Order: sequence, then structure tokens, then C-alpha cells
Amino acid sequence: MNAESGDTVARGQAWEKLWALVKDIRTGMMTTVDGQSLRSRPMTGHAAPKEGEIWFFTRSSSHKAGEIEASREVNVAYADPKLQSFVSVSGRARLVYDRVKVDELWNPFVSAWFPEGKDDPDLALLCIDVEQAEYWDGPASKMIQLWRL
Amino acid sequence: MNAESGDTVARGQAWEKLWALVKDIRTGMMTTVDGQSLRSRPMTGHAAPKEGEIWFFTRSSSHKAGEIEASREVNVAYADPKLQSFVSVSGRARLVYDRVKVDELWNPFVSAWFPEGKDDPDLALLCIDVEQAEYWDGPASKMIQLWRL
Ligand SMILES: Cc1cc2nc3c(=O)[nH]c(=O)nc-3n(C[C@H](O)[C@H](O)[C@H](O)COP(=O)(O)O)c2cc1C
Repeated sequence: MNAESGDTVARGQAWEKLWALVKDIRTGMMTTVDGQSLRSRPMTGHAAPKEGEIWFFTRSSSHKAGEIEASREVNVAYADPKLQSFVSVSGRARLVYDRVKVDELWNPFVSAWFPEGKDDPDLALLCIDVEQAEYWDGPASKMIQLWRL
Repeated sequence: MNAESGDTVARGQAWEKLWALVKDIRTGMMTTVDGQSLRSRPMTGHAAPKEGEIWFFTRSSSHKAGEIEASREVNVAYADPKLQSFVSVSGRARLVYDRVKVDELWNPFVSAWFPEGKDDPDLALLCIDVEQAEYWDGPASKMIQLWRL
């Protein structure tokens, strides 16, 4: 994502703020295109700000995996209504099968969802390449808009 | 929406639960199709369970109004990460200009967004006809799926 290469300090700070919100809120609602309609579901993932990616574990047999094959554009919305913090992340999703990455991201939360462990044949990683994002933060809730360079 | 005509009591109860979550969480993230990408933004609206509708005030000059003209399918995601409650509402959006409805839904929160008041020429209502919904509630977070009859 390269906040470092931003044209202004303000831009770098805005990306930092965005990633901090994503990490704090942690569970986002991922929207996919399902034929005619848009569907969303909660997803708890791993933010990789430097790469501009968000990673999730999922099942390759899941409905959303099929939806992504058909249409890669997704949105992940993070909301904390109490704090009035809201984030919209637009990006392209892909399924990844990579044992090294599985080892890197594996955690107790994931093992609860995958009792068969890392060798579960249905285990997949879902990576979102962030292309554009917006956030609204605090009582004033001014929108800040960001694009990937 | 007609929870009353549900085939089982459980189904009616599920719709009731869904609408209770929508009302409690109050601010949802509405995702629209914006050309190639999916974008979302926070929206605080008014739930009308009996009609199966969610109503918002908006500006007819806004970006989202244009997006809806091009593609009516939207998703509104409600999330309360603290309570582990999540709702996905899929539906079709339309802009409505109806002074009677404006009078009915007008409130102090809205007047803060529209200082010119009800006669602001840019004032519009955005109505979502709910077609399908899902929710995840509580620590077990089992998914409950609902379709409009
Ligand atoms: C708090 C929470 C976190 C979740 N995190 C994930 C996740 O990281 N990956 C995943 O595949 N499903 C996750 N789920 C389950 C999904 O929301 C969804 O129910 C399931 O994946 C099936 O979705 P689909 O039919 O749209 O594919 C989570 C559910 C909850 C309640």
C-alpha cells in the first residue's frame, strides 16, 4: 500500500488511521456480488498494511468462494457505531493456497473454525488487494477518501 | 415483509429478531456498485418492518444517488462487533420524492444534515425494498437466513 510513498504527510497519516481502524474493529462485513444481489457476511481477518492487503481464512467450498470466482470486486465495511467510526474498503479478492502463509496467519481463533487443522482440504486463504478506501471517524465524521497509488 | 405470513412461528420470530437488530444498531453500511468497484458508506435510517422497507434521507445530487440509478441492487450491513451481532440486508433501492413521507420521517437528526429544511430542493428519500436478509447473533453466531415471501 505504501503509505510512505504518499504525496503528502497527511496522506500517509490518513492511511495509518485507516489501518488502525481496520485493526481495532477487526470484524468487517464483506460484500460480494451474488448473481443479481449483493450479500455481506462478517469476516475476521488479518490486516497487512504494508502490502495493502487483508487476509482471511475461509472454506473453498463456501458460497462466497464461488461468488468471488464469478466477480472479484468486493467491499469490506468496518463499523463501530458506539465510537462513530466507519471504514469502507474496496478491493479485488482472490483465493490463495499457500502453506507458508497459512503457517504465518494461523491462530487459535482460526483453529476453532477449522478443527481438522491446517491440513483440512477445504481450507483456503482469501486475500483482498485494497484499491480504494474511505473512512469516517469521530463525532464530526468527515469523510476521508484514499486511493492506492 | 409480512412476517405474519411466515410458514412457521420460528420464521416470524426470526424476522422480528432481524428488525430488532436493525433498529438497535441503527447505522448501517450501505454498499452500492460504483462502476467496477463496490463502495459502502454509513447510513442512519428508519426501519419499516411491516412494509419490509428501510428509509433514508439523502441528497439527489449525491454520488450514491447516481450509483443507484445505474444499479439498484444494494446491501446494508449492520454490525455491532462488541455484541457480536451482524446483519446483512439485500434489496433494491429507489429514490422517492414524497412530501407526506418526508413529514412522517423528519427528525432533529435529519434537520442537522439539511439546514435548509424540508424544502431543500436537493432533499430526497432513498427507500430500500428488502429482498433477502441474514443475521448472526450472539457468541455462537449461527447464521439465520431469510427470504421475502
Ligand atoms: C464474528 C464472525 C467472524 C467470521 N469470520 C469468518 C472468516 O474469517 N472467514 C469465513 O470464511 N467465515 C467467517 N465467518 C462466517 C461467515 O460470516 C459466514 O457465515 C460463512 O463464512 C458462510 O458465508 P457464505 O455462505 O457467504 O460463504 C465469521 C462469522 C462471524 C460471526
